[in-house]
Amino acid sequence: MFADILRKIVEETRGGAGAVLMGYDGIAIDQYFRPLEGVDLQLVAVEYANILKDIKRTAEILDSGEMEEVTIRTGGFQVLIRILNDDYFVALTIEKDGNFGKGRYLLMREAPSLRAELA
Amino acid sequence: MFADILRKIVEETRGGAGAVLMGYDGIAIDQYFRPLEGVDLQLVAVEYANILKDIKRTAEILDSGEMEEVTIRTGGFQVLIRILNDDYFVALTIEKDGNFGKGRYLLMREAPSLRAELA
Repeated sequence: MFADILRKIVEETRGGAGAVLMGYDGIAIDQYFRPLEGVDLQLVAVEYANILKDIKRTAEILDSGEMEEVTIRTGGFQVLIRILNDDYFVALTIEKDGNFGKGRYLLMREAPSLRAELA
Repeated sequence: MFADILRKIVEETRGGAGAVLMGYDGIAIDQYFRPLEGVDLQLVAVEYANILKDIKRTAEILDSGEMEEVTIRTGGFQVLIRILNDDYFVALTIEKDGNFGKGRYLLMREAPSLRAELA
Protein backbone atom coordinates (compact mmCIF):
# COMPACT_ATOMS: atom_id res chain seq x y z
CA MET A 1 0.00 0.00 0.00
CA PHE A 2 1.38 3.39 -1.03
CA ALA A 3 -0.06 5.23 1.99
CA ASP A 4 1.63 2.85 4.44
CA ILE A 5 5.04 3.40 2.88
CA LEU A 6 4.54 7.18 2.82
CA ARG A 7 3.41 7.23 6.46
CA LYS A 8 6.44 5.18 7.50
CA ILE A 9 8.80 7.60 5.73
CA VAL A 10 7.20 10.64 7.40
CA GLU A 11 7.01 9.13 10.87
CA GLU A 12 10.56 7.77 10.86
CA THR A 13 12.00 11.13 9.79
CA ARG A 14 12.43 13.61 12.65
CA GLY A 15 10.61 16.76 11.53
CA GLY A 16 8.81 14.89 8.75
CA ALA A 17 5.70 16.89 7.78
CA GLY A 18 4.29 14.97 4.86
CA ALA A 19 4.96 12.80 1.84
CA VAL A 20 3.12 12.55 -1.44
CA LEU A 21 3.34 10.23 -4.41
CA MET A 22 2.47 12.34 -7.41
CA GLY A 23 2.46 12.47 -11.19
CA TYR A 24 4.11 15.25 -13.17
CA ASP A 25 0.58 16.37 -13.98
CA GLY A 26 0.21 17.41 -10.32
CA ILE A 27 -2.29 14.68 -9.48
CA ALA A 28 -1.49 12.75 -6.31
CA ILE A 29 -1.83 8.97 -6.20
CA ASP A 30 -1.52 8.86 -2.44
CA GLN A 31 -0.24 10.95 0.43
CA TYR A 32 0.30 11.15 4.15
CA PHE A 33 0.38 14.52 5.88
CA ARG A 34 0.87 15.27 9.53
CA PRO A 35 -1.53 17.98 10.63
CA LEU A 36 0.47 21.19 10.35
CA GLU A 37 -0.92 24.64 10.90
CA GLY A 38 -0.93 27.24 8.19
CA VAL A 39 0.69 25.23 5.41
CA ASP A 40 -1.13 23.47 2.58
CA LEU A 41 1.36 20.72 1.74
CA GLN A 42 -0.87 19.39 -1.02
CA LEU A 43 -0.56 22.76 -2.74
CA VAL A 44 3.20 22.75 -2.19
CA ALA A 45 3.48 19.43 -4.01
CA VAL A 46 1.32 20.55 -6.94
CA GLU A 47 3.41 23.68 -7.39
CA TYR A 48 6.62 21.67 -7.35
CA ALA A 49 5.27 19.22 -9.94
CA ASN A 50 5.39 22.03 -12.49
CA ILE A 51 8.94 22.94 -11.56
CA LEU A 52 10.04 19.31 -11.80
CA LYS A 53 8.63 19.15 -15.29
CA ASP A 54 10.87 22.08 -16.23
CA ILE A 55 13.94 20.53 -14.59
CA LYS A 56 13.27 17.21 -16.32
CA ARG A 57 13.00 18.91 -19.71
CA THR A 58 16.14 20.93 -19.01
CA ALA A 59 18.12 17.80 -18.06
CA GLU A 60 16.98 16.19 -21.30
CA ILE A 61 17.87 19.22 -23.43
CA LEU A 62 21.27 19.44 -21.78
CA ASP A 63 21.78 15.70 -22.14
CA SER A 64 23.11 15.66 -18.58
CA GLY A 65 21.52 12.34 -17.67
CA GLU A 66 18.19 11.46 -16.10
CA MET A 67 16.99 13.60 -13.22
CA GLU A 68 17.18 11.54 -10.00
CA GLU A 69 16.74 13.82 -7.02
CA VAL A 70 15.87 17.45 -6.35
CA THR A 71 16.15 19.25 -3.05
CA ILE A 72 14.75 22.66 -2.21
CA ARG A 73 15.52 24.38 1.07
CA THR A 74 13.60 27.49 2.08
CA GLY A 75 13.50 29.44 5.33
CA GLY A 76 10.74 27.19 6.63
CA PHE A 77 11.06 23.78 5.00
CA GLN A 78 13.17 21.28 3.16
CA VAL A 79 11.49 19.54 0.25
CA LEU A 80 13.21 16.36 -0.91
CA ILE A 81 12.03 14.90 -4.20
CA ARG A 82 13.00 11.51 -5.61
CA ILE A 83 12.12 10.62 -9.17
CA LEU A 84 10.54 7.17 -9.48
CA ASN A 85 10.01 6.86 -13.21
CA ASP A 86 9.03 8.91 -16.26
CA ASP A 87 5.63 9.73 -14.83
CA TYR A 88 5.86 9.77 -11.05
CA PHE A 89 7.89 11.17 -8.17
CA VAL A 90 7.71 11.12 -4.40
CA ALA A 91 8.13 14.35 -2.38
CA LEU A 92 8.96 14.49 1.31
CA THR A 93 8.58 17.76 3.22
CA ILE A 94 10.67 18.12 6.36
CA GLU A 95 10.65 20.96 8.84
CA LYS A 96 13.67 23.25 8.70
CA ASP A 97 15.45 21.64 11.65
CA GLY A 98 14.39 18.06 10.88
CA ASN A 99 16.64 15.15 9.99
CA PHE A 100 17.24 15.65 6.29
CA GLY A 101 19.78 12.84 5.94
CA LYS A 102 17.43 10.28 7.47
CA GLY A 103 14.61 11.41 5.17
CA ARG A 104 16.87 11.10 2.17
CA TYR A 105 17.95 7.62 3.21
CA LEU A 106 14.34 6.46 3.73
CA LEU A 107 13.24 7.79 0.32
CA MET A 108 16.13 5.97 -1.29
CA ARG A 109 15.34 2.77 0.64
CA GLU A 110 11.61 2.82 -0.18
CA ALA A 111 11.87 3.95 -3.81
CA PRO A 112 12.14 0.38 -5.17
CA SER A 113 8.95 -0.68 -3.30
CA LEU A 114 7.05 2.34 -4.61
CA ARG A 115 8.39 1.75 -8.10
CA ALA A 116 7.39 -1.93 -7.96
CA GLU A 117 3.83 -1.07 -6.91
CA LEU A 118 3.56 1.50 -9.70
CA ALA A 119 4.57 -1.00 -12.36
CA MET B 1 37.65 38.93 -6.76
CA PHE B 2 34.68 36.76 -7.66
CA ALA B 3 36.67 34.53 -10.03
CA ASP B 4 39.23 33.68 -7.32
CA ILE B 5 36.53 32.58 -4.89
CA LEU B 6 34.79 30.51 -7.56
CA ARG B 7 38.04 28.85 -8.61
CA LYS B 8 38.87 27.99 -5.01
CA ILE B 9 35.44 26.38 -4.52
CA VAL B 10 35.81 24.27 -7.69
CA GLU B 11 39.39 23.21 -7.04
CA GLU B 12 38.84 22.30 -3.40
CA THR B 13 35.83 20.13 -4.24
CA ARG B 14 36.73 16.64 -5.49
CA GLY B 15 34.91 16.26 -8.81
CA GLY B 16 34.22 19.99 -9.01
CA ALA B 17 33.53 20.88 -12.66
CA GLY B 18 32.64 24.56 -12.53
CA ALA B 19 31.08 27.39 -10.59
CA VAL B 20 29.21 30.42 -11.80
CA LEU B 21 27.92 33.56 -10.11
CA MET B 22 24.77 34.48 -11.98
CA GLY B 23 21.70 36.68 -11.93
CA TYR B 24 18.18 35.33 -12.24
CA ASP B 25 18.18 36.88 -15.69
CA GLY B 26 20.70 34.20 -16.74
CA ILE B 27 23.59 36.64 -17.12
CA ALA B 28 26.80 35.54 -15.41
CA ILE B 29 28.89 38.01 -13.41
CA ASP B 30 31.83 35.65 -13.22
CA GLN B 31 32.64 31.96 -13.57
CA TYR B 32 35.33 29.33 -13.36
CA PHE B 33 35.01 26.15 -15.40
CA ARG B 34 37.39 23.23 -15.58
CA PRO B 35 37.75 22.06 -19.15
CA LEU B 36 35.26 19.23 -19.50
CA GLU B 37 34.46 17.46 -22.72
CA GLY B 38 31.01 17.48 -24.20
CA VAL B 39 29.22 19.60 -21.60
CA ASP B 40 28.45 23.30 -21.89
CA LEU B 41 28.29 24.29 -18.23
CA GLN B 42 27.51 27.89 -19.10
CA LEU B 43 24.36 26.67 -20.84
CA VAL B 44 23.51 24.47 -17.85
CA ALA B 45 23.63 27.51 -15.57
CA VAL B 46 21.48 29.65 -17.86
CA GLU B 47 18.84 26.92 -18.06
CA TYR B 48 18.77 26.57 -14.30
CA ALA B 49 18.39 30.32 -13.81
CA ASN B 50 14.93 30.06 -15.33
CA ILE B 51 14.00 27.16 -13.08
CA LEU B 52 15.23 29.02 -10.01
CA LYS B 53 13.01 31.93 -10.91
CA ASP B 54 10.04 29.56 -10.86
CA ILE B 55 11.05 28.01 -7.54
CA LYS B 56 11.55 31.46 -6.01
CA ARG B 57 8.12 32.57 -7.16
CA THR B 58 6.58 29.33 -5.90
CA ALA B 59 8.19 29.72 -2.46
CA GLU B 60 6.80 33.25 -2.29
CA ILE B 61 3.29 32.21 -3.34
CA LEU B 62 3.33 29.39 -0.81
CA ASP B 63 4.76 31.68 1.85
CA SER B 64 7.14 28.90 2.82
CA GLY B 65 10.08 31.21 3.54
CA GLU B 66 12.90 32.48 1.36
CA MET B 67 14.55 30.00 -0.98
CA GLU B 68 18.06 29.23 0.31
CA GLU B 69 19.46 26.23 -1.52
CA VAL B 70 18.48 24.01 -4.43
CA THR B 71 20.14 20.73 -5.39
CA ILE B 72 19.58 18.81 -8.60
CA ARG B 73 21.09 15.37 -9.13
CA THR B 74 21.00 13.78 -12.55
CA GLY B 75 22.65 10.64 -13.91
CA GLY B 76 25.75 12.63 -14.80
CA PHE B 77 26.05 15.60 -12.44
CA GLN B 78 25.10 17.21 -9.20
CA VAL B 79 24.22 20.89 -9.39
CA LEU B 80 24.27 22.71 -6.08
CA ILE B 81 22.79 26.21 -6.01
CA ARG B 82 23.00 28.68 -3.16
CA ILE B 83 20.91 31.83 -3.20
CA LEU B 84 22.93 34.95 -2.38
CA ASN B 85 20.29 37.65 -2.48
CA ASP B 86 17.17 38.70 -4.38
CA ASP B 87 19.07 39.02 -7.64
CA TYR B 88 22.00 36.59 -7.61
CA PHE B 89 22.90 32.97 -6.93
CA VAL B 90 26.00 30.82 -7.18
CA ALA B 91 25.84 27.38 -8.85
CA LEU B 92 28.45 24.66 -8.40
CA THR B 93 28.47 21.66 -10.73
CA ILE B 94 30.09 18.49 -9.40
CA GLU B 95 30.65 15.24 -11.22
CA LYS B 96 28.35 12.40 -10.17
CA ASP B 97 30.89 10.75 -7.88
CA GLY B 98 32.43 13.98 -6.55
CA ASN B 99 32.39 15.19 -2.96
CA PHE B 100 28.99 16.82 -2.67
CA GLY B 101 29.26 17.52 1.06
CA LYS B 102 32.53 19.36 0.67
CA GLY B 103 31.11 21.45 -2.17
CA ARG B 104 28.09 22.32 -0.09
CA TYR B 105 30.29 23.32 2.83
CA LEU B 106 32.50 25.52 0.64
CA LEU B 107 29.52 27.31 -0.92
CA MET B 108 28.16 27.98 2.54
CA ARG B 109 31.55 29.20 3.76
CA GLU B 110 32.14 31.52 0.80
CA ALA B 111 28.59 32.87 0.46
CA PRO B 112 29.20 35.80 2.85
CA SER B 113 32.30 36.90 0.89
CA LEU B 114 30.40 36.76 -2.41
CA ARG B 115 27.46 38.57 -0.86
CA ALA B 116 29.74 41.27 0.56
CA GLU B 117 31.37 41.89 -2.83
CA LEU B 118 27.96 42.08 -4.51
CA ALA B 119 26.73 44.74 -2.10
